[in-house]
Amino acid sequence: METVYSYQQLYNLTHQVFIKMGFSEQHATTACQVLLSADIRGVDSHGIARLSGYIRLWEAKRANAAPHLKVIHETPSTAVVDGDSGLGLVVAPYAMNIAIEKAKNVGTGWVSVQNSNHFGIAGYHAMMALENDMIGIAMTNASPLVAPTFSNERLLGTNPICVAIPAGNEPAFVADLATTTAANGKLEILQRKDQEAPLGWIQDKDGQPSTNPHELKTGGALLPLGGDREHGSHKGYALGAVVDIFSAILSGANYGPWVPPFPAYVPMPVGMPGRGIGHFFGAMRVDAFRSADEFKANMDQWIQRFRSSKPVDPRQKVLIPGDPEREMTAERMKNGIPLLAAVVKDLKEIAGKFEIPFN
Amino acid sequence: METVYSYQQLYNLTHQVFIKMGFSEQHATTACQVLLSADIRGVDSHGIARLSGYIRLWEAKRANAAPHLKVIHETPSTAVVDGDSGLGLVVAPYAMNIAIEKAKNVGTGWVSVQNSNHFGIAGYHAMMALENDMIGIAMTNASPLVAPTFSNERLLGTNPICVAIPAGNEPAFVADLATTTAANGKLEILQRKDQEAPLGWIQDKDGQPSTNPHELKTGGALLPLGGDREHGSHKGYALGAVVDIFSAILSGANYGPWVPPFPAYVPMPVGMPGRGIGHFFGAMRVDAFRSADEFKANMDQWIQRFRSSKPVDPRQKVLIPGDPEREMTAERMKNGIPLLAAVVKDLKEIAGKFEIPFN
Repeated sequence: METVYSYQQLYNLTHQVFIKMGFSEQHATTACQVLLSADIRGVDSHGIARLSGYIRLWEAKRANAAPHLKVIHETPSTAVVDGDSGLGLVVAPYAMNIAIEKAKNVGTGWVSVQNSNHFGIAGYHAMMALENDMIGIAMTNASPLVAPTFSNERLLGTNPICVAIPAGNEPAFVADLATTTAANGKLEILQRKDQEAPLGWIQDKDGQPSTNPHELKTGGALLPLGGDREHGSHKGYALGAVVDIFSAILSGANYGPWVPPFPAYVPMPVGMPGRGIGHFFGAMRVDAFRSADEFKANMDQWIQRFRSSKPVDPRQKVLIPGDPEREMTAERMKNGIPLLAAVVKDLKEIAGKFEIPFN
Repeated sequence: METVYSYQQLYNLTHQVFIKMGFSEQHATTACQVLLSADIRGVDSHGIARLSGYIRLWEAKRANAAPHLKVIHETPSTAVVDGDSGLGLVVAPYAMNIAIEKAKNVGTGWVSVQNSNHFGIAGYHAMMALENDMIGIAMTNASPLVAPTFSNERLLGTNPICVAIPAGNEPAFVADLATTTAANGKLEILQRKDQEAPLGWIQDKDGQPSTNPHELKTGGALLPLGGDREHGSHKGYALGAVVDIFSAILSGANYGPWVPPFPAYVPMPVGMPGRGIGHFFGAMRVDAFRSADEFKANMDQWIQRFRSSKPVDPRQKVLIPGDPEREMTAERMKNGIPLLAAVVKDLKEIAGKFEIPFN
């Protein structure tokens, strides 16, 4: 059972909620754009379905609706931002804009963030660089759900990385990926449908391979990209670790098992070494390396060559990273965004609580 | 059948070979250190076993023994280096040093390289940053052996990424990984032993899963990290693509199917869009973000927490990226480097040709 809403309907609800929570007009607008970018790109797990989660963090006083964002350390090409416990939805674009400004000045900009909360999809932030003819990079750590190779403990989040690269006539290359075999959102879909997961996605509490999508509720873990040692899970583990370190150890945020949980009912970790969760952003001006026109001409050729590559199955053409999300955006901006009944129920409760009309 | 040689024995041979090829004293020394760093770290496929391959590139006039290395474009935090067809073994350290110098000045340095050849292991170059209290990043594109997800063509190399991160009392974190399920060197070992590969490493010429390690000789391909779509191969493909674009499209080198082959007997691609192969390097000063002491204290805690994580099997402890290679280095510097009979035969032929004593 799904109900279809227009982008504008969901925007209006979300914007009013953020305003009633005490966001500034500017922060409410930014947070809406970031949150709903997930819904229109088809990353349903990270969009408006999480609005109630963000509200609960704010109700539990774990998130600040009116953060004073500031740079606490910088060099010409770097900065560390203190997110003042704000939602990552507003902290991340602030930090990414600093990276972009530094890239304008010295070629590249790199910003690590402490004291933030979950930031929606990495793709939104990395793609901010594109209109400036820059390559954008965004990553974040997250609540621990992933076991390192050989381990029986959840020590890493799904720690996504996004790299957005401008092209000329072709649409941009946008790789946005969790460093796990499967994103947690995909597992949640299987949980709702009570369907088995493929082997290689999860392990049980004893570290054994499992196909039970409910395994995480009883001590199981998501697996790093690769799945097992023989198929390179140590590489997925290493990539997730790099995201954790760039996001949190460069900034002074929490890392590994000490990253604060997204669900507000989960107790905070004991002995936290830093502040909030961490993100990391980069912007590289294309013309800090060579003429933007030459770069874009080569990108167009790269994209055309890969897209026209001979497919294994003629019914499934070879894709460029970002293709599925761009097609979904066109489709949903035209025909609306389908929401599951559980999400609609959640939104109606929110609307009731904040006294906002919503049907 | 293996014969054990000391590091010094192999160094003496290699150094004399490079000098007789016409390398400067400085380039010969650097090239030896880079090449043999693979042997002592246990990456046997990328070390002295490749010496004959580099010589054949030089004999075929595809590699320049006396390159004039230069910066052809730069900003305060970026540069593009022209490798003048030199071996990557000397071009890469030159470029990495520029990244380090820029990081000293403005916090970070990022260098893309064109007109180079294969650079040995990424780890050597990234680790150059460590002694400067910097994070080091190194990547390179390579001859096409890997099929993108859904594709039946080899369009990417194994395109490795290394990230080296300094710690305090603990040894550095060094993640050095090909963006494929398995590195080509591992497949070569199975080929020599005529053993089957696990499913998920390779596909045959029709794009079907295969366990035949000889599949690449008949049009098959290595698979991106993840192995198949269900296990996230589109993520490995995206990561390999990012390495290709950073290394070659930012610099003006060749990319995708146009990357020149390492074996000198393989014809050069037709219609090459750039010059040579490409690399990409980064250096980030830790104290461009926060005090190096605080950073290192947190890194030590991170490493200790992960290393002491509960193992699935008590006989296999949880590892930190870089652990196996560091242990191998200690072992081989003490007890020597075992070489396969075929490699020894190769080296004796080289020694004979260049009139260098070697037993």
